[in-house]
Amino acid sequence: MTDQTQLIPGNTLLTNSPEEGRALAVKMARLIIKITQPDAEMREKLRPKYANDAAMLIAIGQTVAMEFATIAKANDYWKEEVK
Amino acid sequence: MTDQTQLIPGNTLLTNSPEEGRALAVKMARLIIKITQPDAEMREKLRPKYANDAAMLIAIGQTVAMEFATIAKANDYWKEEVK
Amino acid sequence: MTDQTQLIPGNTLLTNSPEEGRALAVKMARLIIKITQPDAEMREKLRPKYANDAAMLIAIGQTVAMEFATIAKANDYWKEEVK
Amino acid sequence: MTDQTQLIPGNTLLTNSPEEGRALAVKMARLIIKITQPDAEMREKLRPKYANDAAMLIAIGQTVAMEFATIAKANDYWKEEVK
Amino acid sequence: MTDQTQLIPGNTLLTNSPEEGRALAVKMARLIIKITQPDAEMREKLRPKYANDAAMLIAIGQTVAMEFATIAKANDYWKEEVK
Amino acid sequence: MTDQTQLIPGNTLLTNSPEEGRALAVKMARLIIKITQPDAEMREKLRPKYANDAAMLIAIGQTVAMEFATIAKANDYWKEEVK
Repeated sequence: MTDQTQLIPGNTLLTNSPEEGRALAVKMARLIIKITQPDAEMREKLRPKYANDAAMLIAIGQTVAMEFATIAKANDYWKEEVK
Repeated sequence: MTDQTQLIPGNTLLTNSPEEGRALAVKMARLIIKITQPDAEMREKLRPKYANDAAMLIAIGQTVAMEFATIAKANDYWKEEVK
Repeated sequence: MTDQTQLIPGNTLLTNSPEEGRALAVKMARLIIKITQPDAEMREKLRPKYANDAAMLIAIGQTVAMEFATIAKANDYWKEEVK
Repeated sequence: MTDQTQLIPGNTLLTNSPEEGRALAVKMARLIIKITQPDAEMREKLRPKYANDAAMLIAIGQTVAMEFATIAKANDYWKEEVK
Repeated sequence: MTDQTQLIPGNTLLTNSPEEGRALAVKMARLIIKITQPDAEMREKLRPKYANDAAMLIAIGQTVAMEFATIAKANDYWKEEVK
Repeated sequence: MTDQTQLIPGNTLLTNSPEEGRALAVKMARLIIKITQPDAEMREKLRPKYANDAAMLIAIGQTVAMEFATIAKANDYWKEEVK
């Protein structure tokens, strides 16, 4: 079973839209957890702790906000996008 | 029951005013919680934990501040707006 | 009793001075708490928790610092102001 | 006894040096605590909690880092200063 | 046994791709822990605490997000990269 | 015994390399702790709390990341440096 961790899907911060950029932020945040805790079984065991604890849900939101700030800037805030 | 989660309403960071930008920041923060805990019943159960705990209210405020920093920059701080 | 919450007083990030910008940061941080916990009585009950707990006072300080960073940038750091 | 709180000493973010800018960051962080807990006696009572708790000392450091980021940018990082 | 700690591998923030930049962010975060706790045995003892605790995994994610923000900016977000 | 605290060694944010900039970030973070808790004996007593607690090590890492973001920007990310 190979488990080739990739930190940034597609190896680029550029996305077609804010929505895609936001999804990338979520993925990047998750991949850091994956390389820090590579054991899939343990991650599965920890998952309910994230999802059922208000403080952790907020902390995850902060992490995504940080990643998204970088991605949004990389894409010049998608100002040229058709709305 | 379809539950098509959208991470960024309208798929744009651009808003007409600071007030609208702030409201978007609040929504974006909430939508991350929604995709992390997709079970509406569980979210409803966690809601009083957010709203009645001083530390969590502050943490939510920090999340919104982070999201808003990105949105404000995307809109060049609404400097051109009529005050 | 109407309770028309306004997220950003005056609907602008522009202020006449750093002092006013700092006051706006404090207000913006408080208004997020207000919309997250709209019950005034509950907020009143939580207030001593903020003010008498060292960790929370620090966390409030961090929130204000984040909001102020955005406001200061919006005002180009008031570099043109008479000192 | 008047207690006219001032959020930003001198009402400016501009300082003559990085050292002075850092001192301003410390002061600004403290003044937010002062307006959130205006009771001097209570603040005095909380002081040992800050200074004798490792986690709080770190959190204070983070607050100062945030304030300083804004001040440093306002001063264009004092690049023109004589070293 | 020499233990010459290096805070930034290669002494540069510039990388060839977002993936490499992300890996650098992870390394830089780890190296700060190493100089704060230079005892390898103690670090080894603490490792399961990081990897098996949901709150710490999130906090590590936030640290990496912060480091990556700086690295991404240093590389102008790898906009010129072939995708 | 004089104890002239200096918040920023050399009173400049400019360094010759990323490695030196990172070391400055570590020093600046420590000096804030020093002025908040000026009693050297108490700091010495708190030191093992930092170094042996996983959560605190992470928090210290976040503080350094914040300080480094400012220093890196001040140095234009050392882009002109010979690698």
